[in-house]
Amino acid sequence: MPFNKVAIIGLGLLGGSIGLAVRERLPSLETVGFDADSDVRSRARELGLCGSVAEDAAIAVQDADLVILCVPVGAMRTAAEAIAPALSPGAVVSDVGSSKERVARVLAETLPDHTIIPAHPVAGTERSGPDAGFASLFAGRWCILTPPAHADEAKVGALMQFWRALGSTVEVMDAAHHDMVLAVTSHIPHLVAYTIVGTASDLEEVTRSEVIKYSAGGFRDFTRIAASDPTMWRDVFLHNRDAVLEMMDRFLRDLGSMRNAIDAGDGEAMFDLFTRTRAIRRGILEQGQDDARPDFGRADHTQETSE
Amino acid sequence: MPFNKVAIIGLGLLGGSIGLAVRERLPSLETVGFDADSDVRSRARELGLCGSVAEDAAIAVQDADLVILCVPVGAMRTAAEAIAPALSPGAVVSDVGSSKERVARVLAETLPDHTIIPAHPVAGTERSGPDAGFASLFAGRWCILTPPAHADEAKVGALMQFWRALGSTVEVMDAAHHDMVLAVTSHIPHLVAYTIVGTASDLEEVTRSEVIKYSAGGFRDFTRIAASDPTMWRDVFLHNRDAVLEMMDRFLRDLGSMRNAIDAGDGEAMFDLFTRTRAIRRGILEQGQDDARPDFGRADHTQETSE
Repeated sequence: MPFNKVAIIGLGLLGGSIGLAVRERLPSLETVGFDADSDVRSRARELGLCGSVAEDAAIAVQDADLVILCVPVGAMRTAAEAIAPALSPGAVVSDVGSSKERVARVLAETLPDHTIIPAHPVAGTERSGPDAGFASLFAGRWCILTPPAHADEAKVGALMQFWRALGSTVEVMDAAHHDMVLAVTSHIPHLVAYTIVGTASDLEEVTRSEVIKYSAGGFRDFTRIAASDPTMWRDVFLHNRDAVLEMMDRFLRDLGSMRNAIDAGDGEAMFDLFTRTRAIRRGILEQGQDDARPDFGRADHTQETSE
Repeated sequence: MPFNKVAIIGLGLLGGSIGLAVRERLPSLETVGFDADSDVRSRARELGLCGSVAEDAAIAVQDADLVILCVPVGAMRTAAEAIAPALSPGAVVSDVGSSKERVARVLAETLPDHTIIPAHPVAGTERSGPDAGFASLFAGRWCILTPPAHADEAKVGALMQFWRALGSTVEVMDAAHHDMVLAVTSHIPHLVAYTIVGTASDLEEVTRSEVIKYSAGGFRDFTRIAASDPTMWRDVFLHNRDAVLEMMDRFLRDLGSMRNAIDAGDGEAMFDLFTRTRAIRRGILEQGQDDARPDFGRADHTQETSE
């Protein structure tokens, strides 16, 4: 492992999981954590998320050769400013933000003399905070690096090695392309889920209790996504505005077409769409990015399927 | 159990699961199955979904005191016509369709001299066909009955007893209200999921392979729903058109507001929505309609959470 000491700034789901994954998979690597919230620092110490938890971000990054900012993308500038004075000259500064182009710009502005290699592990759950982390969060998931054009190849390679050691498969991508891909695969699904849950909460004809009771018909999957951290997601939409709006407008256009198909009783248009969408599902199952067990092995039964 | 012989017409996910659940939980109740597709009949015999599988719908319902139509809602009239000549005078005719008002009307028109008690077990998976069924599909799930105003109370009670024996909690509801509730909790989520998967399939900037690779960021949950049976869902949207359009228009209005909030950089509006939506999730977990384990216990880990 080309790193000796990693500083984790922000000890929520992602930061905590990195700490636990390093302890399990890279036990010789020293970890120091920091969180701006003193309650989170106390809890992180109790849970042993890192080898030690510093009381100050600048102290946490001293002598660290890898610094990972695990804060909402809107808090990146403040976090980078806090570590700037104490950062080792040769340290790699990375992050785990869900949007990359603007984060890369913010970090380059704040830390102009350092090596910045933005990263995005495409993994998570709807839970947040220091208690939500677990060591296997990144296992079998993708981690996307978006190094700037002039990046030091050896350092990019070192960061790739780090994420592979945590169980991820690493991909390198242009930051703008990343933001477009994630707008489709993550940001729009979250926005749609939040909105549909909001719509259902506000109805007069259907009570909230009915919505909860009969959620097994599809709605509950949306509520899981819509339970994700509000601060993190607000920041994602503020940061990745252009790509999200572009994808949103296409989705709204397609949704309008389906609305019209229903209005016109056009069963053929519906059947055509509902058949096409199965191919992508097959791809996701084939590539191990989801589990085909009925209900994903939820509660009532544990039967394996032949799929 | 007030029934001696149940005929199951249609041996896909729902029909097959009813057969298996009766075998496990009501072993003294005789089951006869039928499916219009001869391959499905053969497979149902191999799998033992019912005590016997008849070659003709009319033969299947002979002497049955409960007949359950488990076909797509668009096929209800044909199925009802096929059983009409052989139906016992005292038999209860029910179904499992996801929309109820129009199904109730179709069955009343086709079988004017029989007791019709429409039902909807709110349970399912994205898989379909005779191999998809399992005995515990209905355990811990709701089953909604929508008996007509003049219905025989003893027979309604008997059907309630049947579904309770299969593990469901039974609720009685007006058919029109059912259709409004399910439009929100099931039909709109399915339409949105199908559409977003369609939008993602059609992009030029983002390849289908990228959509599949990075689906763990939220998208994969939509693909599961969008892998559901196309015929069944086309029929649901054709049948429950008015309630779906009404709910759809509210959702489109709310989605337009969120689009505008992103466009305007209105972080407060986003944060407000993203916070409100957590309450419904808590209700669903408290009522046992979903599982709070990270990733629902998908693949890579099996850790229980404290939630």
